[in-house]
Amino acid sequence: VTTPPDVLDSSDPLAAFRDRFVVDDDLVAYLDGNSLGRVPKATVERLATFVSEEWGSRLIRGWEDSWVDLPVAVGDEVGAALLGAAAGQTVIADSTSVNIYKLLHAAAATRPDRDEIVIDATNFPTDRYLVESVAAARGMTVRWLEPDLVDNVTVELLGAELGDRTAVVVLCQVDYRSGTLVDLPALTALVHDAGAVVVWDLCHSVGVLPIALDAAQVDFAVGCTYKYLNSGPGSPAFMYVADRHLAEVTQPIAGWWSAADLFAMSDTYEAAPTIRRMLSGTPSVAGIVAVQEGVRLIAEAGVDAIRAKSEALTAYTIELLDDAGVELVTPRDADLRGSHVTVRHLDARRIADQMIARGAVPDFREPDLIRLGLSPLSTSFAEVEAGVRILVEVAAGARR
Amino acid sequence: VTTPPDVLDSSDPLAAFRDRFVVDDDLVAYLDGNSLGRVPKATVERLATFVSEEWGSRLIRGWEDSWVDLPVAVGDEVGAALLGAAAGQTVIADSTSVNIYKLLHAAAATRPDRDEIVIDATNFPTDRYLVESVAAARGMTVRWLEPDLVDNVTVELLGAELGDRTAVVVLCQVDYRSGTLVDLPALTALVHDAGAVVVWDLCHSVGVLPIALDAAQVDFAVGCTYKYLNSGPGSPAFMYVADRHLAEVTQPIAGWWSAADLFAMSDTYEAAPTIRRMLSGTPSVAGIVAVQEGVRLIAEAGVDAIRAKSEALTAYTIELLDDAGVELVTPRDADLRGSHVTVRHLDARRIADQMIARGAVPDFREPDLIRLGLSPLSTSFAEVEAGVRILVEVAAGARR
Repeated sequence: VTTPPDVLDSSDPLAAFRDRFVVDDDLVAYLDGNSLGRVPKATVERLATFVSEEWGSRLIRGWEDSWVDLPVAVGDEVGAALLGAAAGQTVIADSTSVNIYKLLHAAAATRPDRDEIVIDATNFPTDRYLVESVAAARGMTVRWLEPDLVDNVTVELLGAELGDRTAVVVLCQVDYRSGTLVDLPALTALVHDAGAVVVWDLCHSVGVLPIALDAAQVDFAVGCTYKYLNSGPGSPAFMYVADRHLAEVTQPIAGWWSAADLFAMSDTYEAAPTIRRMLSGTPSVAGIVAVQEGVRLIAEAGVDAIRAKSEALTAYTIELLDDAGVELVTPRDADLRGSHVTVRHLDARRIADQMIARGAVPDFREPDLIRLGLSPLSTSFAEVEAGVRILVEVAAGARR
Repeated sequence: VTTPPDVLDSSDPLAAFRDRFVVDDDLVAYLDGNSLGRVPKATVERLATFVSEEWGSRLIRGWEDSWVDLPVAVGDEVGAALLGAAAGQTVIADSTSVNIYKLLHAAAATRPDRDEIVIDATNFPTDRYLVESVAAARGMTVRWLEPDLVDNVTVELLGAELGDRTAVVVLCQVDYRSGTLVDLPALTALVHDAGAVVVWDLCHSVGVLPIALDAAQVDFAVGCTYKYLNSGPGSPAFMYVADRHLAEVTQPIAGWWSAADLFAMSDTYEAAPTIRRMLSGTPSVAGIVAVQEGVRLIAEAGVDAIRAKSEALTAYTIELLDDAGVELVTPRDADLRGSHVTVRHLDARRIADQMIARGAVPDFREPDLIRLGLSPLSTSFAEVEAGVRILVEVAAGARR
């Protein structure tokens, strides 16, 4: 490696954004922003104001003031800034898991004459478990893709498994282990060619790379906000339903917030004609407010600039790891990866523990992976250099 | 009315608890704590500390520090302090609506040879809508009870509708409109006599009166935390599953947080052997932390003392309203009501709006009801007197 990290930092157009986060000097390097993002300083302020002034002072009147519209209003902000989604197709609600559950039922109901849900075996556990649960409940069959961890789901692999029985395909845009970025537009088109619909899990891609759901004619999508959207542990997730499905889409958790008139307390249920029909119960206002701060910070920086820095950060990380001869499971082509880099090592758990003991926080994933998450707005090149140096030093003392 | 409100306040053993809440002097009377409770000062502090120190400083390590155990740990606090529930049966998770959905499926699955869900037409909309959704999904029939609004569900009414087909009965302990408190132990026993299971919605009773779920052998229960538990708009709900059902109980939103080993990222799903199997996705840590502060405040005061004050507050409110000749739909027998008092008036919406304009906040419910919610820890008798006086003055100028 020739360029020193301070030179990289001083020429980084997004460097100043690091000061917009709470950064604890006790940590040498926080390389887990892809599990839980740092706290934006604006969020500290906003939550304090929300608790004291909105909840504390407006009390129940807060719902009419603005809270009741927040799930869609902030959903639209996420859609516009991060998803390439026109207004009215995105809501903030519940958790990723609950939203996947709703979307799986919604998606399957659009193809009542088909009985297969396709998902890859490398997908995140909650997606896989929920596909199994929903398939069982609907009398459908799960068809498993078995991709290579690094290549992940390719057009060839998926194409071979689609057919007249395929109702729904569930895919992650960026693999939570390898960091592999798959071809969302091409895979979406392939699913449509087979007459099926797709549910995209954007948890590891939203906020770090440009996404164009409308342009790709994606059907359904879901993602979390506690990673690159920096909205806090267990912050609410988002859900996207393409406009063309909205009028017909149904979901099973048909609580009062999904009804056409929330406060009518009607005798009979009628689903809202809008994206609100995907809601269920009362949303966490504090949670949505934190999402709003998170998405505004990203919008201010711009996703294209963030993607450019993400590519530079992952390239730099790979360079450092290659110099040390550490094994990677992340693609070397920047176009094929998201914003984390993953090391494979027999002693991964012990290395991760020892790194944490030395103030560098990565993420361990069973059984032998160490993820280095590089959150472009809050991660500096100096931080990456320090963290990787510790990883390499610790690994040098570990069994191979 | 003979006793002036300041005398009642000065002899109120819980009077000092009012200072533990953020109380905005701009409001003459906040009589809607049964929709959204006031902010405990401890919660303002705790949330600020949580954001800056726990999330901000511990970051991802917070999950291992304590967050991962919070849903059950705080559930146990709610169970012990408020529900009469031994440890291991209560979790904090999701919203009331999502939890009702899970519990309805879980409850119905315990009676696979039966096909009816019984619910009253006076029940809260989300309960009714979800019963209809779950019944449709499972090929079951909904049997509707049609109780009188004031009497609500009696043993006689329910007894006449139970039979060999009854799988699940869904009831509210306190009616959200009239405030009627039904006989939870007797109704639960009746359901069991019919060989069915019961799901209790405790939204309008939890925190203001003693509840003994274990003693009554209740099967399942759910409730929210943003009313008398003062945990903020859209704070997470709780869910109770009796120990005897836990080993067999299943729920459809089988996300990763319901799995036996959360971080194993296992190929195959295995439900946790504990109450954690009722979880789905990543819980809102900020939300659960706020619930913890709310329940601790109630535990400190004691539910019996709170119930005594609640009875005094509702009795005083009824006395004032009776003096003014206002029509009520709340039982006059203190044993038969919860902690809100409801007025019926043709001009209810306009009266509520005018009350709010004058700084007294009640709750309007379609089409002709005004609820006065009396949250014992934060509501003073002086506040009640001022609020009711405004109601009576406004009503005197309204059409009858």
